[in-house]
Amino acid sequence: MDQTMNNNLEDALLEDGEAFHPGFSVDCVIFGFHANQLKVLLLKMKHAEAWALPGGFVYKEEDVEAAAGRILQARTGLTQVFLRQFHLFGGPARSQSGLNRMMLNARQLPADERHWFLQRFITLGFYALVDFSRVTPRADAISEACQWVDLKGVPALILDHDLILNKALETLRLQLNHQPIGYNLLPEKFTMPELQKLYETILGKKLDRRNFQRRMLSFGILKRLEERRSGGAHKAPYYYRFDQQQYQQALQDGLPGGW
Amino acid sequence: MDQTMNNNLEDALLEDGEAFHPGFSVDCVIFGFHANQLKVLLLKMKHAEAWALPGGFVYKEEDVEAAAGRILQARTGLTQVFLRQFHLFGGPARSQSGLNRMMLNARQLPADERHWFLQRFITLGFYALVDFSRVTPRADAISEACQWVDLKGVPALILDHDLILNKALETLRLQLNHQPIGYNLLPEKFTMPELQKLYETILGKKLDRRNFQRRMLSFGILKRLEERRSGGAHKAPYYYRFDQQQYQQALQDGLPGGW
Repeated sequence: MDQTMNNNLEDALLEDGEAFHPGFSVDCVIFGFHANQLKVLLLKMKHAEAWALPGGFVYKEEDVEAAAGRILQARTGLTQVFLRQFHLFGGPARSQSGLNRMMLNARQLPADERHWFLQRFITLGFYALVDFSRVTPRADAISEACQWVDLKGVPALILDHDLILNKALETLRLQLNHQPIGYNLLPEKFTMPELQKLYETILGKKLDRRNFQRRMLSFGILKRLEERRSGGAHKAPYYYRFDQQQYQQALQDGLPGGW
Repeated sequence: MDQTMNNNLEDALLEDGEAFHPGFSVDCVIFGFHANQLKVLLLKMKHAEAWALPGGFVYKEEDVEAAAGRILQARTGLTQVFLRQFHLFGGPARSQSGLNRMMLNARQLPADERHWFLQRFITLGFYALVDFSRVTPRADAISEACQWVDLKGVPALILDHDLILNKALETLRLQLNHQPIGYNLLPEKFTMPELQKLYETILGKKLDRRNFQRRMLSFGILKRLEERRSGGAHKAPYYYRFDQQQYQQALQDGLPGGW
């Protein structure tokens, strides 16, 4: 475990934020898919019954995208992940809750109005698509736990983090035909019911099984393997994998049609 | 002409930027369509042979989206315009050119390294789609002219503004099936050749005339008027207008297929 990274935020609080680009933060919505559930990686805050998206600050000489990658790596252990900025949240009062003050108080740090941690922050939202099985969740300096939460069971989040999460989901929906979302969230081989479940969760609606399968196959982006999933009471479904070349080609123009 | 708004930037330079959120700016890529050309609104800088996108800063208590709207209004006179953020440009050296120093020098302002105008700025790109005929371009305090430039004749731009413009165009391309781009760029009534030209310019390629017309009509989003365009040597083309209800409905799912 990398102590340097984990102490990043706590150091920042103590050092009055001098190391960072002022008034600016990054928040990451990290999606994973496991046991037919779309999940998001959340932090349970210390000193508060509150949950948050993983986030952090940008060093003065650091690229903003690189900072998001560093934060993602610190929470998941992963590099080389699908990670995209999707929206800047820039309301004047978005970071002015009592929470930051409480965190300073909990450390007996002086919390006057000019403390950098109490000033206005605008935040850039990133979303990441990760292979659930490869992630080792790690808490940061201001949280006591880092864990996967089912999207349908997300607790109340701090500040405007619920808005950020919803906007990330909306972005997934809009980009479903243009970004390799299935490829990044699913393991290398998967069944058609798993793929359908992923689409249903992102879209927030049920899809007809036969239509889904027919349409997915019509795109020419899937390869059926000889292997079937074993276990299960029903007829064992075949495994598929993405034909990455065909998939990338198809995404250039966008997969045809809405869902 | 609103002197207060036009002096915004000049005041900011003199006042050392105290009024603004630190290290952050907004740049607007304002698109218009006229005489079969896609155009972008640019500023010709004072004191330099350089062109720039209209931009500005965000007041300490101001919403970021509201700031973009204020900047757009100052340059065009328009309110209630289609305006969307599309990307944050956050490279560590993007604003560190000699240009800002030159602008300070031209005003005999002290230009030591700590001057706020010389520090690192990250910038949020917005794109706007406006009705060309309604715009009255207005220069700002650091520019000597504000004018429409054909997209295919854009001069060299300051800082990373060429990158910002290209990314805005890429966004238009990606969103062509999801945002009312034609509706916002074209006048209320237009001909099929004009609509095709708009699509061709955004996509950067020629489209087959018959396929384009067949496909556009198949979406059910256009209403043909009884009126034809007069003038022209060829057979006068019919005018069309968007059926806004059908258009919005179709965009929900995305217009089907790539171009």
